Amino acid sequence: MSKGQQTRSTILSEAMRTASVEGFQGISIGMLADRLGMSKSGLFAHFGSKEELEKAVLDETAKRFMDAIWTPVRREPRGRPRVEALFRHWLDWTQQNDQLPGGCLFVALAADLDDKPGPVRDQLADLQRQWDAMLVRSARIAMEEGHFRADLDPRQFAYEMQGIVLGLNFYRRLLQDPAAIRRAEDAFAALLERSAA
Amino acid sequence: MSKGQQTRSTILSEAMRTASVEGFQGISIGMLADRLGMSKSGLFAHFGSKEELEKAVLDETAKRFMDAIWTPVRREPRGRPRVEALFRHWLDWTQQNDQLPGGCLFVALAADLDDKPGPVRDQLADLQRQWDAMLVRSARIAMEEGHFRADLDPRQFAYEMQGIVLGLNFYRRLLQDPAAIRRAEDAFAALLERSAA
Repeated sequence: MSKGQQTRSTILSEAMRTASVEGFQGISIGMLADRLGMSKSGLFAHFGSKEELEKAVLDETAKRFMDAIWTPVRREPRGRPRVEALFRHWLDWTQQNDQLPGGCLFVALAADLDDKPGPVRDQLADLQRQWDAMLVRSARIAMEEGHFRADLDPRQFAYEMQGIVLGLNFYRRLLQDPAAIRRAEDAFAALLERSAA
Repeated sequence: MSKGQQTRSTILSEAMRTASVEGFQGISIGMLADRLGMSKSGLFAHFGSKEELEKAVLDETAKRFMDAIWTPVRREPRGRPRVEALFRHWLDWTQQNDQLPGGCLFVALAADLDDKPGPVRDQLADLQRQWDAMLVRSARIAMEEGHFRADLDPRQFAYEMQGIVLGLNFYRRLLQDPAAIRRAEDAFAALLERSAA
């Protein structure tokens, strides 16, 4: 990475950390400059506006999310093993407190942005549609491999998998339920069982 | 209702509507006074601070939520019929666009407030724990009535039911998936089926 790329990455890491706790309302270019001991104009050289910064945060988060999840998943055999690994690494992602102290940034932003029309909302929705498509595709491959039953609806599978992870966020972060992770794992095990061929 | 109670209720309705779209960041006493054609001091007579207003909005929303859901549910026979009615009326609640144009206020606020320690976050968590306890109790009664199997974990049932509704919010509001409601209904039908005695 060049020095410019390193600086950009440092700014985005700090923005991700703060936004995971406080949402996009919680970040500003001036505040990030303060925290990082940079000049405001130095930060503006990387991101010309708050909106540009927000979009860059979403892209960077998606990139790191895919690196964290897809890289290990791809090493698993096709079909059900990949679906299981996908879930396991997704759960790990939601618990990496150093990068995202407020939990998954996408979940933190979803309910906040869903009713706010504009390019940032559209980008978040696009990224989440891509993720949904990836879950659907993984379930479909497990059907093709004969691991999941042939009459499974892979879109329904993706919906329920997403609901389990959203439930985990809710029970763990808001209700502070210590059993939340176990419940998510049990729910997913039951989903796998009733999807099996 | 006295005139004072009516005014209070009008203020809270407007605050609920706005907060369902924009979160608590989106409301202020001055802005509500503007929208309602009231004086700022008139509004302060009802709510001494922004925090007091936020707590009153949560209480009022919980009251209306229970009125909307529990009143019709209570008329159903105990056990599974009540669990089914609970889900149906909960779904209706999330779709009443006049009162809550941004969808369920609790969902809209959950990811926003979960990492913000303080009395407002605590109150939201308490209200949601009460709701979770009510779901658990309803599942337990269905077990006692012999409608649900005796080895069901009613807490797991509540977790999965909550996940289905959180998934609905996500797929409908962020992804704008027209199939979201059908998926929520199918997921719940499957949950009922595997819980049945």
